[in-house]
Amino acid sequence: MEKKYNVAILGATGLVGGELLKTLEKRNFSVNNLKLLASVRSRDKKIKFKDELIKVEEVTNDSFKNIDIVLASSGQDTALQFANAAVKSGACFIDNSNAFRMDKDVPLVVPEVNGEELKKHKGVIANPNCSTSQLVPVLKVLNDIGILKRVIVSTYQSVSGAGLEAMEELSQQTGQWLSKSEITKKIMPKQIAFNLIPHIDAFLPNGYTKEEMKVVEESRKILNLPDLPITCTAVRVPVMIGHSESVTVDLEKNISLATVKKALSQHELIEVVDDPNKGEYMTPLEAAHTDPVYVSRIRKDTSSPNGYNMWVVSDNLKIGAALNAVKIAEYLIKNDLLAYSKV
Amino acid sequence: MEKKYNVAILGATGLVGGELLKTLEKRNFSVNNLKLLASVRSRDKKIKFKDELIKVEEVTNDSFKNIDIVLASSGQDTALQFANAAVKSGACFIDNSNAFRMDKDVPLVVPEVNGEELKKHKGVIANPNCSTSQLVPVLKVLNDIGILKRVIVSTYQSVSGAGLEAMEELSQQTGQWLSKSEITKKIMPKQIAFNLIPHIDAFLPNGYTKEEMKVVEESRKILNLPDLPITCTAVRVPVMIGHSESVTVDLEKNISLATVKKALSQHELIEVVDDPNKGEYMTPLEAAHTDPVYVSRIRKDTSSPNGYNMWVVSDNLKIGAALNAVKIAEYLIKNDLLAYSKV
Repeated sequence: MEKKYNVAILGATGLVGGELLKTLEKRNFSVNNLKLLASVRSRDKKIKFKDELIKVEEVTNDSFKNIDIVLASSGQDTALQFANAAVKSGACFIDNSNAFRMDKDVPLVVPEVNGEELKKHKGVIANPNCSTSQLVPVLKVLNDIGILKRVIVSTYQSVSGAGLEAMEELSQQTGQWLSKSEITKKIMPKQIAFNLIPHIDAFLPNGYTKEEMKVVEESRKILNLPDLPITCTAVRVPVMIGHSESVTVDLEKNISLATVKKALSQHELIEVVDDPNKGEYMTPLEAAHTDPVYVSRIRKDTSSPNGYNMWVVSDNLKIGAALNAVKIAEYLIKNDLLAYSKV
Repeated sequence: MEKKYNVAILGATGLVGGELLKTLEKRNFSVNNLKLLASVRSRDKKIKFKDELIKVEEVTNDSFKNIDIVLASSGQDTALQFANAAVKSGACFIDNSNAFRMDKDVPLVVPEVNGEELKKHKGVIANPNCSTSQLVPVLKVLNDIGILKRVIVSTYQSVSGAGLEAMEELSQQTGQWLSKSEITKKIMPKQIAFNLIPHIDAFLPNGYTKEEMKVVEESRKILNLPDLPITCTAVRVPVMIGHSESVTVDLEKNISLATVKKALSQHELIEVVDDPNKGEYMTPLEAAHTDPVYVSRIRKDTSSPNGYNMWVVSDNLKIGAALNAVKIAEYLIKNDLLAYSKV
């Protein structure tokens, strides 16, 4: 008989929380008991999973008894507050926040890129930032075939990366704009409807945003290339779901475009959609609600002999968050890596 | 007494045509007689200039008699059809289309960058593509202080770059989306509301779009750096007015960030808006309806020792089109360069 697991979703009422529920259901994850945890504000709210209505419980240190896997999408503070309790109870804490990603004792994993890192976990496992998750499979393939020399990324990130309220804000501002009403602002630092904001997360002393440095540092960690020359400009765009990235990569070796395309298309996460003359290139609207990392517009860089430009698009709530977290859990189960601290 | 000029606007009923009218008025351009020309469809339409209603005339080969300056924003085909007649009549034909930009006998000019090229004109003068116009003053400054080694540009281009109908399409699709109606499509290759389209102008055999290669080739021509390593990815975004560019530049020399910022801010076209901790960075919505090229988020590139990242924003209808065209006319007048063929 198939073994089943007790799973807790921490931050169950959020955007990624909802996506986690959908993902567990869609992938027929072997759930025995499902516990939905959130802050006191959401207590007693009921959420549907399969044919069952589950009551949301307030998260406390005692919430994790008999839980095998915690899928956390509750933000950094809650993660810092409860990860330890979860791990002490013997659960694996798969965290979607920024709390533990750069901790050297915490694996930061996209299973199809560096799943083997999960063998070293000590209870807490970090899910990369959404912009990083869709980038690293592409970089991994290119490094394998030609050795990465330099990476330059400009992002076009949807508002869902900032949560449900940001999506509502875009929708509301858009309505206000169409009806010529005053535009109100709550979540976003500036108006996002019919605008772009080159400001995601806080600014750092070096002039970068935290979001940009996440892409830099997390990519280096996941690829195990601590000195990789990589830079990023992160921009919020008025799109609901789906992050896009304009990526320029320099390789050590000169690889033919055909080889690059073939290698990318062979990675299990990637789908190459690249026949511009037939209108075949991806947009975030088309990528939303689908699983792959799409690579389009692959071409030789006109500024560098071994350079390549491409357009990378994915659903930021899936590979960038919920889908990757569930795949981490699946990898742990498949490779018998859940029982780290119960030994 | 101030000399006055007979000016014709070709494509007077279009988006840039309207902006040309506003610009002539705002800058108190010395207009004697103003002729508004368009295709037969717009004949007899009346357009206001200062306190006068001017009737639009159908453009023919005879339209240019006694005209000193033609400001053309009528597209490539009309430019190719009528430039010769205008020049034969003794007018300077300042063209906003792609028809003559790469013609070696035609100066391609942003006056504050390479105005001296106007001394060589033979009647036809080309206005650069909007994405190029706002980029070249920045590149010029950086080349002057540190010698350009490589330039990588990712654009975020507003729909007004595709004309009035594209703006209407974004507005219409947005309304349809909000009312959950079917989204209709006419101008744009894919839905633009709540989406991005990495496809501006036609695709070329090398995988680039014409728009991307315009940025590459026009920048090289304007900067007189025919071998400049430069590449571009051009993306349409759901913004009405204002083009943004994520620009990465490698210099030969290592220049301090303070020197870079100071040099940029000293260029007459550029306004540096760059104090992120005070929320000071530009967005296209804030740049719309203003004249400068704004440079924000200037920082050292984390992927290259002499690399710099920045965010360049401008109103694509002004520096990118109408304002630059009128400034070319002003330069011609000021430097007594109108009378090329009357000599």
